Amino acid sequence: MNMLKTPAIVVNLKTYLETTGKKALELAKVMERVSSETGVQMAICPQAADLRLVAENSNVPVFAQHFDVLKPGAGTGMTLPETVADAGACGTLVNHSEHRLTLADIDWCVQKAKALKLDTIVCTNNVATSAAAAALKPYMVAVEPPELIGGDISVTSADPAVVSGSVDAVRKVDEKVLVLCGAGVKNGKDVRGAIELGSAGVLLASGVAKAKNWEEVLMDLAKGAVE
Amino acid sequence: MNMLKTPAIVVNLKTYLETTGKKALELAKVMERVSSETGVQMAICPQAADLRLVAENSNVPVFAQHFDVLKPGAGTGMTLPETVADAGACGTLVNHSEHRLTLADIDWCVQKAKALKLDTIVCTNNVATSAAAAALKPYMVAVEPPELIGGDISVTSADPAVVSGSVDAVRKVDEKVLVLCGAGVKNGKDVRGAIELGSAGVLLASGVAKAKNWEEVLMDLAKGAVE
Amino acid sequence: MNMLKTPAIVVNLKTYLETTGKKALELAKVMERVSSETGVQMAICPQAADLRLVAENSNVPVFAQHFDVLKPGAGTGMTLPETVADAGACGTLVNHSEHRLTLADIDWCVQKAKALKLDTIVCTNNVATSAAAAALKPYMVAVEPPELIGGDISVTSADPAVVSGSVDAVRKVDEKVLVLCGAGVKNGKDVRGAIELGSAGVLLASGVAKAKNWEEVLMDLAKGAVE
Amino acid sequence: MNMLKTPAIVVNLKTYLETTGKKALELAKVMERVSSETGVQMAICPQAADLRLVAENSNVPVFAQHFDVLKPGAGTGMTLPETVADAGACGTLVNHSEHRLTLADIDWCVQKAKALKLDTIVCTNNVATSAAAAALKPYMVAVEPPELIGGDISVTSADPAVVSGSVDAVRKVDEKVLVLCGAGVKNGKDVRGAIELGSAGVLLASGVAKAKNWEEVLMDLAKGAVE
Repeated sequence: MNMLKTPAIVVNLKTYLETTGKKALELAKVMERVSSETGVQMAICPQAADLRLVAENSNVPVFAQHFDVLKPGAGTGMTLPETVADAGACGTLVNHSEHRLTLADIDWCVQKAKALKLDTIVCTNNVATSAAAAALKPYMVAVEPPELIGGDISVTSADPAVVSGSVDAVRKVDEKVLVLCGAGVKNGKDVRGAIELGSAGVLLASGVAKAKNWEEVLMDLAKGAVE
Repeated sequence: MNMLKTPAIVVNLKTYLETTGKKALELAKVMERVSSETGVQMAICPQAADLRLVAENSNVPVFAQHFDVLKPGAGTGMTLPETVADAGACGTLVNHSEHRLTLADIDWCVQKAKALKLDTIVCTNNVATSAAAAALKPYMVAVEPPELIGGDISVTSADPAVVSGSVDAVRKVDEKVLVLCGAGVKNGKDVRGAIELGSAGVLLASGVAKAKNWEEVLMDLAKGAVE
Repeated sequence: MNMLKTPAIVVNLKTYLETTGKKALELAKVMERVSSETGVQMAICPQAADLRLVAENSNVPVFAQHFDVLKPGAGTGMTLPETVADAGACGTLVNHSEHRLTLADIDWCVQKAKALKLDTIVCTNNVATSAAAAALKPYMVAVEPPELIGGDISVTSADPAVVSGSVDAVRKVDEKVLVLCGAGVKNGKDVRGAIELGSAGVLLASGVAKAKNWEEVLMDLAKGAVE
Repeated sequence: MNMLKTPAIVVNLKTYLETTGKKALELAKVMERVSSETGVQMAICPQAADLRLVAENSNVPVFAQHFDVLKPGAGTGMTLPETVADAGACGTLVNHSEHRLTLADIDWCVQKAKALKLDTIVCTNNVATSAAAAALKPYMVAVEPPELIGGDISVTSADPAVVSGSVDAVRKVDEKVLVLCGAGVKNGKDVRGAIELGSAGVLLASGVAKAKNWEEVLMDLAKGAVE
C-alpha cells in the first residue's frame, strides 16, 4: 500500500471505446515504457471488465475506477471489492464525479480498501469536500471541479485556488493524505502547474485516452513531472 | 439562523402514521407546551406534506427532513429547497441515515440552506464521517450509529465513545459546529447522558413519535436537559 | 376512483417557483373557474408540500407528482403514499420522466394507489413502454417522449405516431387503460390534436405553469378539448 | 442471437466469493462438461471483471449480469454495454432483483443489446411485470419472486401459479418471448417442475454456486431437463 511515488500521473480510462479491452492493455504498455524511460510514476484505471487483462500483462499499477458497497453474496451486476483485488488492482478510485457515493459509503470504501490492501484515491469537487474526504483518511484525495472535467482548460489555470486550497485544507485535517488534482489536464505544463500548486500529481482521462498519439502525450506529461 | 438554544431536543417524525397530518400538528402543540413550561429548546421535523400545516399553526421551530439537490424547474416529485422554506421550515435535516446523500450533495445542501437562511443538521454514522461533515460547516452534526437507530438501547449507553469522539473530532475541524447525538434515545436519562458526553442535545424519532403519551415522554426528556 | 371525465387536461406544477405555495393555490382557483365555465375536466399536480393547501382550498382534483415506495415507519425525507392521500390527493403521477421508477416499483405504486383509492397516471416514453405500463393496469398511461418535454413543439405535431401507437398498443394490452399524451403541449390546437390521435387528454406543465396569463392559456386549452 | 436451446439452465454467479475469478472459470469448465455429456443447454453469468476470463477459456455461453445505461465516454466505474460484448458475453441479464432498472432503462437495454447482438434475459417479480417486460420484446423473461430468491423452497413448489401465470401472460403479449423461472431452484426435480409449468428453463444462483460439488448438482439439474 501507499505504493505510488510522487509526483504521479494517474490515467482514468473511463468508458472510452478508445481504451476498452485490448486497447486498454496497449495503452498500459505505452505507459509502462514511458514511465520506465522517464522514471515518472504512472497508474492506470481500466474498466472493471478490463482489470485482469491489464494487470496480468503489464506492470503499471492498476487502479479500479470504482467498487460497490457490498459484501460477497447476493449482488448481481455489482462490482465487489474482493473481485477487484482478485483481478489484480492495487487500488481504486472512490467517489469519482461520474460515480458519486454517499459520505457513509466513501468511508466504507476507504476502510474496505485498507482491509484488502488497496490504495484509495477519493475524488472531490472543491476545497470543502477535499477537507471532508481527508477526515476519512484515504491514501489520496483528487480534487476535480466537475465543470472543468473533460474541458480544454486545465484546473491548474482555470482555478488554481481550488488546488492550493485543497492542499492546505487537506494538510490541516491530516497531513499524511496526499492531494492530486484533475480536470482539463492535458500536457506537461499542466502537470508542472499542479506540482507547483503543492499537489502530488494529476488524475486525467480524455487528455490521454482520446489522444491520437499516446506516447507523445505521456512523454510530455512525464516531462512536466520531472522538470 | 443558528436559532436553536442548546441543549436542544429535535424530534424527527419520519413517515410514522402516528405523526402524519393533523397528528403532526397535535404533537407540535404538545412540544410547544412542554418547551414553554420547561424552557427546553425543541424542534420538530414533519414530512414535507405536513410542513406548512405545522409551521403555520405552532411556534415550535420546524425542520424539514430532507430536501433534494435541484434548482427550481423540472423536478417532478422532488422536494425543492425553496419550497421547504416557503412552507415555513427554518432548517432541515441533511443526509439522514434513511436518506443518504453524496458528499458533494451534502456540501450543496449546506450551502443552499445558508442561502435560504435555513439551519442544517447533517446526520453522520461515526466519528470519521462526523469530522468530514464538520468540514462542510453545517450548523450542527448529528451522529447516529445506524445499527442503533430505532432500537431500545440509547447510543449514549451502547456506544458513548462515538458521541464523545464525534464531539472532539468535530471541534478539532471547526469549533463552531455543534454536535447532536441520536439512535435509541428515549428518556431524560439518555438526554442527560448526551449532554454529559459533550453534545448539544439529541435527535430522536420513535421514542417520541410512537409513544403512547407524548407529553409524558417529552416532559421526561426535557427534565434530562435541565438537570 | 377513475374520477376524471375525458378528455382531461392535467397540469403538472413540477418544482416551478411560479407555482409554488400560494401560487399553486392561485393557479388551482383559475383552473377551477375555467373548468367550471367550459365543462372541461382539469386536474392539478402540486409539489408534496403544497398538496394540502391546494386540496383543502379548491375543488380541482389534486394529483401528487410522485410517492415513494415505502411502508409507514422509518422513511425520513420520503413521500409516503398514505401521507399523500391524507393531504387530499385523489391520485398520483407515477414514473414521470423526472422521477423514473423501476418496473417492480411502478407495479407496487399502482397496487398501493388502488388500495388507497388513488388514481394513477403512469408516465412512459415510447410505444413499447406504454404497452408495458398498461400490463400493470393503471388508471391512465401518459406517453411523453423525453426529448420533447419542456420544448416548443407539441408531441402531437413532432411525433404523432408515438401517441397513436401508444393508444393502439395500450388498448391491445388492456382496453380499460386510458392514454394521455404530453411533451411540448401548449395550446388548444395541441389538445385537439391529442384527442384526434385517440388519446384521452393531455399532461402538460410549463405550457401552463410558466405562462404569463394562466386563464388565457387554460381557456384556450379547454376550447381545444370541446371543439 | 437467440442462441440458447431450450430447456436451458442459466447459472448466475452473483458476487459469491466461491465463484469469483479462477473459480468462475473452474465452474464454467464443469458446466461445459456436464452440458456436453447430457446435451442440456447451459449458460453462465460471471461478474463483469470475470467475463473475459470465462469467455476466452470455456465454450459455455457467457451472459453478463448487468450493463449500465450509458454511451461510451464519461462513465467512470460503469459497465458499458460495448465492453461487456468486447469481453466475450453473448447476452446479459437485465433488471435482476438485485439490480433493478427503470422501465425506460429496461427498454433501452433490450434495444442496445439487440444492436450489439446480445441476448437479453429480463428478470421480473410477478405475473404483471412479466407481461410488462414481454411488451419490450426481450429474448427471455425470467420470473423470480424476490421473497423466494436465495431460499430453500423452489418457486415451482412455493408458487407454481407465478410461473404458469407468467408463461400465459407473456405469451399473450408476445408469443416469441421465452419464459424462465427462478428463486429457490436447487435440483432436477425443480427443473422438471419448471418445464412442466411451461417455462423454457431455469435461472439459478446459490443452488449451484454455493454447492459443495458442482458437478453433482449440475448433473442432477441436467437430468431434470431431459427426463
